[in-house]
Amino acid sequence: MTVNIGLLGFGTVASGIPFLLQENGEKIVAASRSDLEITKVLVKDDEEKNRLLAAGNDYNFVTDVNEILNDSEIDIVVELMGRIEPARTFITSALEAGKHVVSANKDLIATHGKELIALAQDKGVAFYYEAAVAGGIPILRTLANSLTSDKVTRILGVLNGTSNFMMTKMVDEGWTYDAALKTAQELGYAESDPTNDVEGIDAAYKAVILSQFGFGMTLDFAAVSHKGITTITPDDVAVAQELGYVIKLVGDVREVESGISAEVAPTFLPKGHPLASVNGVMNAVFVESIGIGESMYYGPGAGQKPTATSVAADIVRIARRINDKNVGKPFNEFARETKLANPADVFAKYYFAIDVPDKKGQILRLAEIFNAQNISFEQVLQQKANGEVARVVIITHELSQTQLEDVTADLNAVADFTVVNTFKVLGD
Amino acid sequence: MTVNIGLLGFGTVASGIPFLLQENGEKIVAASRSDLEITKVLVKDDEEKNRLLAAGNDYNFVTDVNEILNDSEIDIVVELMGRIEPARTFITSALEAGKHVVSANKDLIATHGKELIALAQDKGVAFYYEAAVAGGIPILRTLANSLTSDKVTRILGVLNGTSNFMMTKMVDEGWTYDAALKTAQELGYAESDPTNDVEGIDAAYKAVILSQFGFGMTLDFAAVSHKGITTITPDDVAVAQELGYVIKLVGDVREVESGISAEVAPTFLPKGHPLASVNGVMNAVFVESIGIGESMYYGPGAGQKPTATSVAADIVRIARRINDKNVGKPFNEFARETKLANPADVFAKYYFAIDVPDKKGQILRLAEIFNAQNISFEQVLQQKANGEVARVVIITHELSQTQLEDVTADLNAVADFTVVNTFKVLGD
Ligand SMILES: NC(=O)c1ccc[n+]([C@@H]2O[C@H](COP(=O)([O-])OP(=O)(O)OC[C@H]3O[C@@H](n4cnc5c(N)ncnc54)[C@H](OP(=O)(O)O)[C@@H]3O)[C@@H](O)[C@H]2O)c1
Ligand SMILES: NC(=O)c1ccc[n+]([C@@H]2O[C@H](COP(=O)([O-])OP(=O)(O)OC[C@H]3O[C@@H](n4cnc5c(N)ncnc54)[C@H](OP(=O)(O)O)[C@@H]3O)[C@@H](O)[C@H]2O)c1
Repeated sequence: MTVNIGLLGFGTVASGIPFLLQENGEKIVAASRSDLEITKVLVKDDEEKNRLLAAGNDYNFVTDVNEILNDSEIDIVVELMGRIEPARTFITSALEAGKHVVSANKDLIATHGKELIALAQDKGVAFYYEAAVAGGIPILRTLANSLTSDKVTRILGVLNGTSNFMMTKMVDEGWTYDAALKTAQELGYAESDPTNDVEGIDAAYKAVILSQFGFGMTLDFAAVSHKGITTITPDDVAVAQELGYVIKLVGDVREVESGISAEVAPTFLPKGHPLASVNGVMNAVFVESIGIGESMYYGPGAGQKPTATSVAADIVRIARRINDKNVGKPFNEFARETKLANPADVFAKYYFAIDVPDKKGQILRLAEIFNAQNISFEQVLQQKANGEVARVVIITHELSQTQLEDVTADLNAVADFTVVNTFKVLGD
Repeated sequence: MTVNIGLLGFGTVASGIPFLLQENGEKIVAASRSDLEITKVLVKDDEEKNRLLAAGNDYNFVTDVNEILNDSEIDIVVELMGRIEPARTFITSALEAGKHVVSANKDLIATHGKELIALAQDKGVAFYYEAAVAGGIPILRTLANSLTSDKVTRILGVLNGTSNFMMTKMVDEGWTYDAALKTAQELGYAESDPTNDVEGIDAAYKAVILSQFGFGMTLDFAAVSHKGITTITPDDVAVAQELGYVIKLVGDVREVESGISAEVAPTFLPKGHPLASVNGVMNAVFVESIGIGESMYYGPGAGQKPTATSVAADIVRIARRINDKNVGKPFNEFARETKLANPADVFAKYYFAIDVPDKKGQILRLAEIFNAQNISFEQVLQQKANGEVARVVIITHELSQTQLEDVTADLNAVADFTVVNTFKVLGD
């Protein structure tokens, strides 16, 4: 049997698939129990088509998506164009035409996944997207298959390679944010508009998808709070190091009594935490669960070959299931009613960097404010004054998100205090 | 539908399964699309049965295995007794009776897996054993499912929690081997006879199983060379640290031009290697592949709940497939002709600790011997003499296993040289 594939887009990731089929074809064909054939590839225009042909690519390039959508021979449509539109329209049409779909498009899946998944179910076709979270790390399939027997209580992830590369440079080599961004752009890790990476938006997309697989709950993107790495200063980095932490942009999804809480934010990780040594463009997903306890899945979060490998794993799985005549099962079957956590129920330690006047008695003034919200200090560090202003660094004991909001408001209400930064602090 | 389970043995791991079914029952039943019921539990004798009943265990305990094997209502037999016999006979009978089997018995699977897998195939039943390698880490299923699209080139693993606990104490806290073993025994990590753990035998069992999933090759246990941690001295540990390495017992399976090579041995890991920070009883499997590149799977290698979680994942998978009417697929479908690597083809750097007379010119004598085998030095360290004898530590550039054997023989032929230890050294 031959399973025919139509590719939408032939950019970075898509052009890695022929490599795998060539270098690992025998194993892939055996596992698929089918020959896999890329029968058509959608590109934008004739110019692109001619450029790719001239470069030696031996595919049937088409410029009209209908040539793929209306081709009854094509079994699987693999969308690797990125962006919301026209990807959303193309995938919708493909599913409606009864084709299985593979995608790596986290932006689309995090924001419109629900309707696409429902449509696929309705049509009895597969819609798989392992590559959408943490590129080469097979985390979604692992959560869906191996952790079915387990109950996940928290997922912590270093989910964005670009910002992690930048943070690694800032932490290990003392680079400034701007220098790190410039190098990330030069190396092709960051796009010219790096907003999604550095503001935690890309990681928040991934947190939405992880919530489905880990907790069976479908969050709206808006329910994932996100804060990026743009506000982290060299001072924060230095203090973190002094106190035995590294700062990373961490996605944190957890279930508490009242429901699920998801956020992406710069986070103090103790140096001994397995996520603390995830450096450069590597990603990792750290899972806490009642059965396994603690497990971590580590690998490249992006890149042509790793991402194409995840896409190819989805293709193989669909091909097998076409053969087994049980294709059409949802990628993730775990579903419960979505309940958002009450912020009064979500606890963490926090780091506060606060500028205060360089006068006696400031720690006492701070202690009174925190104390009024029932928050106690684990560590306090008063740094040398810089002109009129002294920097006080506080690491608190655990407090709720409600307490965090309240105490921040209280601190902001004091005219001569400036809350420079507030970051979450994880335990070992 | 109800899927009925018969447990063989009710020790550490087996008694963790009721916990999971109770704490995570809803998710497990939904994923299984069946109710799972433990209908019979085999224990050794009436004394054990009465003890367990008195302790409040509400199961149908039986002391004759035939009550399970001949019970046509039982769909899945879960063997958690350990040892080769009678586990082998019981599993064989269960498979012959057309029952699906789940086991965590690495000793048995590494030494007699081939015939059991063939029998299961023959009978069209499932034989799954995720828990046999690295306890709670879902590495086998991940290799079988997610890495089908990839070609694995090397698997490195910290695969034995007991020895890793001991090595961590020896490296981080300077304990002696004997002190580390004593504590491991007190904490219940090591058995009274710790041979399998400390001699690398347990890790070698796991290497056999990993070879099947990662490389599609079934090795005889005898083809996995193994060396344990018993010969590691505090001097080795100190030198390793000085040179920027940590020593761990590492399973190493790789494919070279001529075939596959598998060994378990104390190994120098550069401090920055992801495996270097796998401490205590944690395990990790580090995979190198042409697609993903480098990925690592980290978690508890043993323990009641983690291991029971892997066993339960196998049970869920079988129950689903009974429902889908496609049960009976092999756990691992990847199979190629087994070819053993030619030792002349398997390269690594090595650490040599050699005692030489405390006289001038010894490094030159050593250099001549290594040079005659075409081996060059990367680092040499001459330590202060202790009486008449000086310790020279050498880290070589890459050499083949044949060169290693030859040079070791040459060194041993020199009357006043003593090769104290030789360990493999990994690059970053
Ligand atoms: N790169 C990674 O490491 C990585 C990792 C994980 C997930 N992903 C996801 O994988 C997807 C693809 O990423 P990528 O890095 O491969 O992106 P890319 O290199 O920009 O490739 C996308 C390709 O699709 C083409 N395209 C866009 N719209 C099209 C249209 N309407 N018709 C035909 N072709 C169209 C683009 O052409 P133009 O260049 O002419 O616009 C480009 O060649 C994205 O969803 C991304 O988020 C990527
Ligand atoms: N413990 C772990 O963390 C772990 C991790 C990975 C894999 N495993 C594997 O899981 C398996 C079980 O390990 P475990 O730690 O649970 O061992 P365990 O605590 O010793 O449990 C084995 C149980 O089976 C019983 N048993 C032995 N032979 C029997 C027989 N003929 N009939 C009835 N019952 C019998 C034993 O009874 P007696 O005590 O009376 O002999 C004991 O209660 C082993 O294959 C082990 O290698 C264990």
